[in-house]
Amino acid sequence: MSTTVTALIAPSAGAGFERSTIERRDVGEHDVAIDIKFAGICHSDIHQAREEWGTAIFPMVPGHEIAGIVTEVGSAVTKHKVGDRVGIGCMVNSCGECENCLAGEEQFCLKGNVQTYNAREYSGEETYGGYSKSIVARENFVLSIPEGIELDEAAPLLCAGITTYSPLKHWGAGPGKKVAIVGMGGLGHMAVKIAHALGAEVTVLSQSLSKEEDGKKFGADHYYATADGSAFKALRGTFDLIINTVSADIPVDAYLGTLKLNGSLVFVGAPEKPQSFASFSLIGARRSLAGSNIGGIRETQEMLDFCAEHHIGAEIETLDASDPSAIDKAYDRVVKSDVRYRFVIDAATI
Amino acid sequence: MSTTVTALIAPSAGAGFERSTIERRDVGEHDVAIDIKFAGICHSDIHQAREEWGTAIFPMVPGHEIAGIVTEVGSAVTKHKVGDRVGIGCMVNSCGECENCLAGEEQFCLKGNVQTYNAREYSGEETYGGYSKSIVARENFVLSIPEGIELDEAAPLLCAGITTYSPLKHWGAGPGKKVAIVGMGGLGHMAVKIAHALGAEVTVLSQSLSKEEDGKKFGADHYYATADGSAFKALRGTFDLIINTVSADIPVDAYLGTLKLNGSLVFVGAPEKPQSFASFSLIGARRSLAGSNIGGIRETQEMLDFCAEHHIGAEIETLDASDPSAIDKAYDRVVKSDVRYRFVIDAATI
Repeated sequence: MSTTVTALIAPSAGAGFERSTIERRDVGEHDVAIDIKFAGICHSDIHQAREEWGTAIFPMVPGHEIAGIVTEVGSAVTKHKVGDRVGIGCMVNSCGECENCLAGEEQFCLKGNVQTYNAREYSGEETYGGYSKSIVARENFVLSIPEGIELDEAAPLLCAGITTYSPLKHWGAGPGKKVAIVGMGGLGHMAVKIAHALGAEVTVLSQSLSKEEDGKKFGADHYYATADGSAFKALRGTFDLIINTVSADIPVDAYLGTLKLNGSLVFVGAPEKPQSFASFSLIGARRSLAGSNIGGIRETQEMLDFCAEHHIGAEIETLDASDPSAIDKAYDRVVKSDVRYRFVIDAATI
Repeated sequence: MSTTVTALIAPSAGAGFERSTIERRDVGEHDVAIDIKFAGICHSDIHQAREEWGTAIFPMVPGHEIAGIVTEVGSAVTKHKVGDRVGIGCMVNSCGECENCLAGEEQFCLKGNVQTYNAREYSGEETYGGYSKSIVARENFVLSIPEGIELDEAAPLLCAGITTYSPLKHWGAGPGKKVAIVGMGGLGHMAVKIAHALGAEVTVLSQSLSKEEDGKKFGADHYYATADGSAFKALRGTFDLIINTVSADIPVDAYLGTLKLNGSLVFVGAPEKPQSFASFSLIGARRSLAGSNIGGIRETQEMLDFCAEHHIGAEIETLDASDPSAIDKAYDRVVKSDVRYRFVIDAATI
C-alpha cells in the first residue's frame, strides 16, 4: 500500500539531518510518481526545520523546490507521462472549490492549501518534501519543466522563481517601468533576472556593493548600497515598484520615499516582527505597501515557460548530501547569506 | 493694489479666533474674485490653527471648503463668469509642469502645490483661506458647483467629498464590490453616500452603533461596532476595499484581516504616530495598505458633477460666526466628534 523511500530527515526542531526512510503512497488515479533529481534549499526550509514559524511536524522532510522525472502515472492522468521533466513547488493540494482556487490562485485557497511538507493532507496524512529520492503527487500540482532549462537550475524556480515572477507580473513590471529589488539572495537574484527579462529598468538595493558585478550580469541596470542611507535620498520618487525579498526589518518609510506616484512596495520576504510606517508616506504619493505569496499553479507554469524562453535559471551551488550533515552546514551558510545564490541538493546523493 | 477683506483670524497657535482684516490681491488676468457664501470646518483646520502639524504661519485664516459666487473675472478667464456658483478646495496653485500636474494630479505636484491657507504662493505671499468674506484665485483652481446642490451643502465636498471620492474611484468601488468605511465623521459620512451612489455594497465600521440610523439613511447596507473586536472575526475576508477616515491609531492587522484577496486598506485619515503591521497580513492574501490625498482639479470637478447628479451633499450644521468664539467652540466639538456631520460657517455672519 506504499513505497519506502530514502529521505533526509530533521528528527526534531533544530536537530541535525539524518538519512532515514519515509513512506510514499501508491500512485492513485490522479497521481504522478516522480524520481527526484534535485531539491533546492529555501530559507523557509530552515525556519520550519528549526521551528521558528510556530509548531512544526516532526520528523520533517523539507524541500519545496523539486525537479525530477516522471516514473509512473495514475490511470486518469492526462497532463504528464512517464519520462516527462517535471517539478513540484510549495503546494500539493488545495480545495479546488473556493473562489480563489477557481480563479487559479490556489496559494490563497480559503480552506488552506496543503503545503508540500510540514503539513497534512486533508485526510490527515503528513506531507514530506523534496529532500528525498521520490515523491507522489496529484497531477494538477505537478508542473512541466520545459526543454531549455536544466533540472538543477529549474528546481529553485518552483519557489524563488514564482515568488518573484508573480508580483512582478501583478504590479506590471515591464518596458518603461522602474523596478527595484531589495536584497540579492536566493529570491533577489531571481527577481533581477525576471524583471530584466520582462523589460523593466532594474535597480538592486543591497546592503553593500559586494554582489554588484553579479547583479549587473543578471540584468540590473543600477546597483546601490543602502547601508549608509544616502541612496534613499538620491532615489527619492524614482520607482514604480519595489520587491522586498529580505526577511530582516527594513526602514519602510525610507523605501516608500523612493516610490513615485502610485508606486508599490511589495513584501515577499516576511520579517518576523511587525514593521511600522507613517501614514503620510503612503498618502503623500498614493503609494501602497503590499505582500505577495508564491503564485498559482497556472502562473507557475507560465513562469517556467517564460524562464525557458528567456534562458533563465537559478544560479546554484550543488550539494552532495552523502553525509547528511552537509545540509546543516548549508543551512548555516544560508543564514549567513553565504551562498551564490541557491543550494540545490543532488538527490542522487540522498 | 489690493482689497481689504474681513476675516476670522487665528492670531497665534491655539489662540481664540478674532474678527480682523486681510488683504486680497487685485484680480489678475487669470484670476477670479469670489464672494464667499459658506466655508466648511475641516479637522485639518484645527490641526493647523493649533499648530499640531509642524510650524504654521500666523496670523492664519483657515478654510479650504469654500463655496461662493463669482463677482469679477480677469481679462483672460474663460472657465468662469460673474454670477457663477463656484468652489475652492485645498489647493490654489501648482507648478503645472511636472509629470503629476500634467497627469491632472496637482495634489501630488512634485514642486509642491500651494495650499489654500497656511502656505505661501511661489512668489512668497501668504495664502489665506475661506473663513473670510471673499477670495481671489486662479481660474484653474476654481471649481464649478452645478445646479442641484445648495452652496452650503456643497462647501464640504471640496475637501471631505473629493478626499473620499478619489480613492473610491481609484480602487474601483462600484457594483459587485464590498466597501467598508472606517469612521462616520465628516469624511466618513461622505464616503458612505458616495460609495453607495457608486453602486458598492457599503459597510460602516464605527466605534459604536450610535450613528447607525444615520449611516443606513446615507446608504450603508451594514453597520458594525468595532470597539469589542468581535466584528473583525465576523468579517474576516469580506471586503474589496476599506477606506479609513479616522486619524486615531487603528489595529491595522485586524482591519487587513477583513479584506479578501487583493483587497486594499486605504488611509485618508492621517494618524500622527507610526502604525504597525505584520507582513503576513499582507502576504496572506495579496493585500495592500495604501494612502490617498484629496484629488486633482479635474477629478474634483467630476466629483461635484457626480454629487449633483446623485443629489449628494454634506450633512451640515450651519455656524453663525457673529461672535468669533463660535469657531473655537465648534473646534472643540469637532475634536469630540460632536457634530453631525460638518460645520459650515455662514460667511454672511463673518
